[in-house]
Amino acid sequence: MRTLITNIGELTTNVAAGDDLCGTLHDAAVLIEGDRIVWVGAAADAPLAPSISAEPSVSSAESLGSAEIDGAVAVVDAAGQAVIPGFVDSHSHLVFGGDRAAEFEARMQGQKYAAGGIRSTVAATRAASDDELRGRLRCFLDEMLAQGTTTVEIKSGYGLDVATEERLVRLAAEVTPEVTFLGAHVVPAEYADRGDEYVDLVTGPMLDACAPHVKWIDVFCETGAFTVEQSRRVLEAGISRGLEPRVHASQLGPGEGVQLAVELGAASIDHGTYLTDGDVTALAGSDTVLTLLPGVEFSTRQPYPDARRLIDAGVTVAIACDTNPGSSFTSSMPFCIAVAVRDMRMTVAEAIHAATAGGAAALRRDDIGRIAPGMRADLVLLKSPSRVHLAYRPGVPLVEAVWKDGVRAV
Amino acid sequence: MRTLITNIGELTTNVAAGDDLCGTLHDAAVLIEGDRIVWVGAAADAPLAPSISAEPSVSSAESLGSAEIDGAVAVVDAAGQAVIPGFVDSHSHLVFGGDRAAEFEARMQGQKYAAGGIRSTVAATRAASDDELRGRLRCFLDEMLAQGTTTVEIKSGYGLDVATEERLVRLAAEVTPEVTFLGAHVVPAEYADRGDEYVDLVTGPMLDACAPHVKWIDVFCETGAFTVEQSRRVLEAGISRGLEPRVHASQLGPGEGVQLAVELGAASIDHGTYLTDGDVTALAGSDTVLTLLPGVEFSTRQPYPDARRLIDAGVTVAIACDTNPGSSFTSSMPFCIAVAVRDMRMTVAEAIHAATAGGAAALRRDDIGRIAPGMRADLVLLKSPSRVHLAYRPGVPLVEAVWKDGVRAV
Repeated sequence: MRTLITNIGELTTNVAAGDDLCGTLHDAAVLIEGDRIVWVGAAADAPLAPSISAEPSVSSAESLGSAEIDGAVAVVDAAGQAVIPGFVDSHSHLVFGGDRAAEFEARMQGQKYAAGGIRSTVAATRAASDDELRGRLRCFLDEMLAQGTTTVEIKSGYGLDVATEERLVRLAAEVTPEVTFLGAHVVPAEYADRGDEYVDLVTGPMLDACAPHVKWIDVFCETGAFTVEQSRRVLEAGISRGLEPRVHASQLGPGEGVQLAVELGAASIDHGTYLTDGDVTALAGSDTVLTLLPGVEFSTRQPYPDARRLIDAGVTVAIACDTNPGSSFTSSMPFCIAVAVRDMRMTVAEAIHAATAGGAAALRRDDIGRIAPGMRADLVLLKSPSRVHLAYRPGVPLVEAVWKDGVRAV
Repeated sequence: MRTLITNIGELTTNVAAGDDLCGTLHDAAVLIEGDRIVWVGAAADAPLAPSISAEPSVSSAESLGSAEIDGAVAVVDAAGQAVIPGFVDSHSHLVFGGDRAAEFEARMQGQKYAAGGIRSTVAATRAASDDELRGRLRCFLDEMLAQGTTTVEIKSGYGLDVATEERLVRLAAEVTPEVTFLGAHVVPAEYADRGDEYVDLVTGPMLDACAPHVKWIDVFCETGAFTVEQSRRVLEAGISRGLEPRVHASQLGPGEGVQLAVELGAASIDHGTYLTDGDVTALAGSDTVLTLLPGVEFSTRQPYPDARRLIDAGVTVAIACDTNPGSSFTSSMPFCIAVAVRDMRMTVAEAIHAATAGGAAALRRDDIGRIAPGMRADLVLLKSPSRVHLAYRPGVPLVEAVWKDGVRAV
């Protein structure tokens, strides 16, 4: 099965060309075969089946139905609208019970955000059945796909005991290969003032139970969560089991998490709300991506990190939603892009690149985040002539169609 | 035809009860007959047709299909989710040609917003055919309805000549009774430095052409647009033709527009980004609503007005999108609510009240904005258990179903 998406007014390939980070093509077409992109270029040069060349029976713009001809190529007319790579959301916490709407309301009326709220979600998550968690997870994934997200990373971290953490990573692994073990999210109430003992549990029996299901090991290295020494223990234990490290750090204040992440070759440090000049220099000289989470600053009223400072210093930047019931319950990559442009001083092109190719880099994936031959066919057709509208029209659902692994999913 | 929406987990009626501005009911039901709400109360007390009482064949939550029984009452199971009144978006500019994506990008990279950009939309609008404008208008209305907006006000103001302004109000009147003549949006290029002559045109031939199609007269009373004397001429000319006044003022700096609006008994002054203490006092002692437009401050990076100051002083506040290609291209009332809560210091209840009952007050409508017997049946069923999620989950499409005049529209 092949699909030709043609008459694309603006195509964001992310194959950088000179100053154009987004590798933009106009009047373009993309040919999909199976789950891969096999050709990208000018619509006029598109490799069509002979019967199509002879009779260009392109479907109407309004219905967006695809015209299949001779069973060989389905042709989709993008009607001059924009196509971008599917969003790669490299940071989420989608497996949990309950919500924290009341905490959110209190915060909006002046109460300060504190990571301790995580514990109320832990109680609700432990109490939820597998099927309840699976049902909600499916809702979130559908919601994300409808907003253009084709790859999502999912962390554990609302179980904080061996059995529940194992449940969370197992459920996450049913829906994505990008699963992260975050047993060291916060010290649970039953280990209060016994953080080192909890780290023994995380690096011992909990890691034993979770490692078979996960790709990544993560830790929240922050005052109120885990010290840099405890964080190192967690990450090194994961690495020794073949997991790759990523780190939550510098969300609530400056700390040593970034330096630790760089030292251990982490794929990403996430948050980075408070970065020292030394942190920025270390990141710029490393392969570690800085993943910005604009929804967190929006929903906690914390100061926005300055993405301009990072990009100008040479740091690779990703944008993710951090979907979770405490600090950021958005699942909308377009919303995060709009906030990053307004409040983190990114250009629209930089923000969209960060939400696609940046996310792929944060997951060390070379098969997603760009539109080029050989890449997975994960694409989003917008209801707008340009990607700029994702920031220019904040909050408006602008996704017209989504392909995931070459299959029309929305 | 009657529709019973039952099993509503949280119903926002806006019929204030004690401290609860939103008049919240739990485990509630609403009965619709024709285009009106005829009953509101506890689900257990819902007046059902006898055949339904005998056999409670309520439709499943997932399909949200309505089960029609004996052709008498269609029953919709809200599955414990929240229902709110349809949003009343009392400020938009939906009839225009082109967009200003490049201006937006330049602004995000540091260029300051200036009202003069309106002129580029004027050129594109004059060049567009009726059918082009009508087609775009229909797209915007569909987009708004899908986001829960059941009433929208539409202004002219991108024609700025007699023929085009007449076209714009005529096209707007095809889709809403809330049409506003805003010939005095900005002085067009061909009248540069001849503002008074342009006001002669607006208050003479242009008003003659437009008055038959419109309910409202509006003016942009601001440095760079129209002086307070010119604004008074425009508004008084409209009033003399039976139109009701509303005013754009204090968007780019403090001015006399608010005082003028209050003096003339305007239904609303819109923007209010820069208000003096005298403005606030005048508004609090009047029937004039202050319509906040959070999308404007978001998309122009201007300072957010402090809604807390206004509400605490006793001003009636509305929230609207101001959908337009220059200063605010969002059409999402949920997005505007989220920003108002985060950045204008409104509670979630205040913001949702302002986006529904507040908008109704700004349009002097007593048949919309609340869920009570006798009101128009304009309701929104959310995909969330509480209205709080509209702010708690910014950017996420949370509208499950919409009824407009008693008819399921989404």
